[in-house]
Amino acid sequence: MQVEISGSEKIVKKGKSKRRSECPLNASVEMLGDRWSLLIIRDMMLRGWRTFKEFLEGYEGIATNILADRLRKLVAYGILTTDRDPSDGRRLIYSLTAKGIDLAPVLTEMVLWAAAHEPTGNQALVRQMRKDKEKFMAEVRERWAQRHAK
Amino acid sequence: MQVEISGSEKIVKKGKSKRRSECPLNASVEMLGDRWSLLIIRDMMLRGWRTFKEFLEGYEGIATNILADRLRKLVAYGILTTDRDPSDGRRLIYSLTAKGIDLAPVLTEMVLWAAAHEPTGNQALVRQMRKDKEKFMAEVRERWAQRHAK
Repeated sequence: MQVEISGSEKIVKKGKSKRRSECPLNASVEMLGDRWSLLIIRDMMLRGWRTFKEFLEGYEGIATNILADRLRKLVAYGILTTDRDPSDGRRLIYSLTAKGIDLAPVLTEMVLWAAAHEPTGNQALVRQMRKDKEKFMAEVRERWAQRHAK
Repeated sequence: MQVEISGSEKIVKKGKSKRRSECPLNASVEMLGDRWSLLIIRDMMLRGWRTFKEFLEGYEGIATNILADRLRKLVAYGILTTDRDPSDGRRLIYSLTAKGIDLAPVLTEMVLWAAAHEPTGNQALVRQMRKDKEKFMAEVRERWAQRHAK
């Protein structure tokens, strides 16, 4: 059986948004296909990072303008939202939206794939995912819901 | 509960290979974090594409040197292998390795995520995945095994 990918490489133009194709995988790749976006989402999900400063200090060698661009795009895609920090109105606090937290299965499968095929670290996280993937994702989602209930 | 990501952003240098961190997600992003690699893997998985010509004609607007670079990297990462075409010794035939076909869950989750949150096409594929994700991936793997048994 060959799967039909209907019109998948036709360029889709809709008003201002111009997408290379209407395939859902292409949509994901256009939003997330770079070297930083998924790491930003990972660190919001697992480490609870929420400020520009945390990302800038956390990623060795990321340029300020690249980080600002990635955050701006993730907000534009509806994956992150921003609020003013109540204790410092000049500072933005980033949050994962429901669309953002829904990326947990994508991140989990990417971690499991690399851990199976590459010499990687962070074995505690990998063991936790392998042992019970659904439970791991439920806990990620639970922590996210708690953060947002505050 | 906060998950500990041990030493995840330390730059890991091992001989020639230099990785930004030892986190498995970072390994995935370094291998796959661009706008084409996952689409190439998708089309080998679902459409059975195997030649440079198929990719070049299939992707509107991909530059020859970008395509050549992506294929070269995917081979270097052990995601693809190459053989000489028996009917034309100058032509290479690309195949997904076991490591490559193991990306099926990553691609599936990316498709399901985008289909849930973006206006995308190819609903037949999405329905098939939603109905029974495990069955869909088993079929992808089965077709891959059959191609390689030839």
